[in-house]
Amino acid sequence: MMVLHIHRRGPRTTASFSIMAPPVLSTPEQYQELLDSVDTFLLDCDGVLYHGSNVVPGIKQVLPMLRRAGKKIIFVTNNASKSRRMYVDTFRKLGLEAQAEEIFGSGYASAVYLSKVLNFPKDKRVYVIGEVGLEEELDSVGIGHSGGTDPEDRVFMEKDGFGDIKPDPSIGAVLCGFDIHINYKKYAKAFSYMRDNKDCHFLLTNQDPTYPTSFATGDPDQPIRHTIFPGSGSISYPLVYASKRTPTVIGKPNTTMMDAILAEHQFDPKRALMVGDNLATDIEFGINSGVRTLLVMGGVTKREAIFGDEPSKTVPDFVMESFGDLAVLDKQ
Amino acid sequence: MMVLHIHRRGPRTTASFSIMAPPVLSTPEQYQELLDSVDTFLLDCDGVLYHGSNVVPGIKQVLPMLRRAGKKIIFVTNNASKSRRMYVDTFRKLGLEAQAEEIFGSGYASAVYLSKVLNFPKDKRVYVIGEVGLEEELDSVGIGHSGGTDPEDRVFMEKDGFGDIKPDPSIGAVLCGFDIHINYKKYAKAFSYMRDNKDCHFLLTNQDPTYPTSFATGDPDQPIRHTIFPGSGSISYPLVYASKRTPTVIGKPNTTMMDAILAEHQFDPKRALMVGDNLATDIEFGINSGVRTLLVMGGVTKREAIFGDEPSKTVPDFVMESFGDLAVLDKQ
Repeated sequence: MMVLHIHRRGPRTTASFSIMAPPVLSTPEQYQELLDSVDTFLLDCDGVLYHGSNVVPGIKQVLPMLRRAGKKIIFVTNNASKSRRMYVDTFRKLGLEAQAEEIFGSGYASAVYLSKVLNFPKDKRVYVIGEVGLEEELDSVGIGHSGGTDPEDRVFMEKDGFGDIKPDPSIGAVLCGFDIHINYKKYAKAFSYMRDNKDCHFLLTNQDPTYPTSFATGDPDQPIRHTIFPGSGSISYPLVYASKRTPTVIGKPNTTMMDAILAEHQFDPKRALMVGDNLATDIEFGINSGVRTLLVMGGVTKREAIFGDEPSKTVPDFVMESFGDLAVLDKQ
Repeated sequence: MMVLHIHRRGPRTTASFSIMAPPVLSTPEQYQELLDSVDTFLLDCDGVLYHGSNVVPGIKQVLPMLRRAGKKIIFVTNNASKSRRMYVDTFRKLGLEAQAEEIFGSGYASAVYLSKVLNFPKDKRVYVIGEVGLEEELDSVGIGHSGGTDPEDRVFMEKDGFGDIKPDPSIGAVLCGFDIHINYKKYAKAFSYMRDNKDCHFLLTNQDPTYPTSFATGDPDQPIRHTIFPGSGSISYPLVYASKRTPTVIGKPNTTMMDAILAEHQFDPKRALMVGDNLATDIEFGINSGVRTLLVMGGVTKREAIFGDEPSKTVPDFVMESFGDLAVLDKQ
């Protein structure tokens, strides 16, 4: 573990526990020391590299700089609505570079988990609550599926429609991710497959309660609004509550995601760093996986959660204002 | 408390607790003794009076018999998708009689709670996740609302639609019930009203995980299938999980429902009996409200839950095969 030449704040005692605040990196010397200690950067995307369609200042310099320095970069995102292919496109449009192999979305990780961990039978299919990106990732590992973007499941059913929900013994798993076309027919079908078959697997791409997004407001005083809406974990919850089952959750902070990454990349966890803006997903994921963690501000974590009187029990190894601040090291 | 002339089964000891099985009423003498001890019957509907569109045998005799004997009948149902007016129609079509004043659905109870307990301000409105029956009950107490059956909220939004979800400071409460037209736009709007206004109330009509229904199968061997699908509590859960708020739950087993009933009916709880087929809602409701309870079989409760080796901790005062069996007492 590197030693940083800065002073940690002293321990603060709250009602039930005492927590040491993490060191805040803010000088070029501290940034360089961090870089020297890391070979592999595991980077959350939204909140670290960009906010919606706005690239974080400095990031366009930082990523090529890390590559030139021989660092391995792996993008680790809970967003399952985009496939790796779609992420490459998104990155290109934002002026960032990425290879499909560098990208681990929770959709791809779910497909890998089904295929490699569960050895999902070839004659079974997955019922998908989710979008085209999730379907693409199942396709990429050769797993058949139904639901998802099928227009027959993007409808509002009526109360006399229950009889139309037929048993389907070919369904071997329900996989639930973010689905902006969620509707009762999808819930009813997914529920019925689990109700009628106790061996049907139940997977969530992730359990994020909220989904951060941003949009143009038309208000000159606040042209872009960053806010949150119900996320994938929330959308999935009706099936958890109705079925009374405990799903297998793939995305951060669960180590299933790291298992999927390590199945395709070799690296030394001691020389890796998970960078994210979310304590509950990114930082917990790093801690659960035995990797050091760097929290960046400006995303979903409020400053009080780290430096307030009642700090979160989840403490990153380091804090930085923005991952883009590393651009100050760029000699080119 | 009446004394029944039957033998209780002895106590059974399980890993963690010892439970006395409730007496099973099965003879005319036992039925008459029960009737003599009750002035007010609180009756669950689906599972006690009918299963879907099939009236339970005997019920058409039992209800008029109880009325002739001067018993007060109150129908207590968690179903919020029908208003009292709609229930009267449903009863009439099934050949049963009921007055609107006798019917307490969780929709009406929610409207009463908003109006009488929360003194909901006249200049505020309720955002409804639910159906026309719930809207009718809000109308009946003079509370304005949006959402619900509005065609603008019965649509699939797209990812670029977040900016169209505008703040609405007139929304003073989110009320969530069963809604077969549930969709992401409704979740996003309801969530945003609570996100932007911590004083916005959050109510669920009920927390039932599943919704019992029945439908024609077209299969001569099993012409009607009775089964379950995700219920109102499940549909509501994305808002609970995303908002991290604890909602006020109106329906059984919560005593809020009894408060609403007692606001409009006087009766002696000691001479009342809650009759239902569901341990978690009906029987818990009676216990929580200090009213004796009668469980009927043939609904959602499996026999093992009462008489199995690991019985439920929720124990009714009495068990009967069917509430329709009281018809044996009908002298007319």
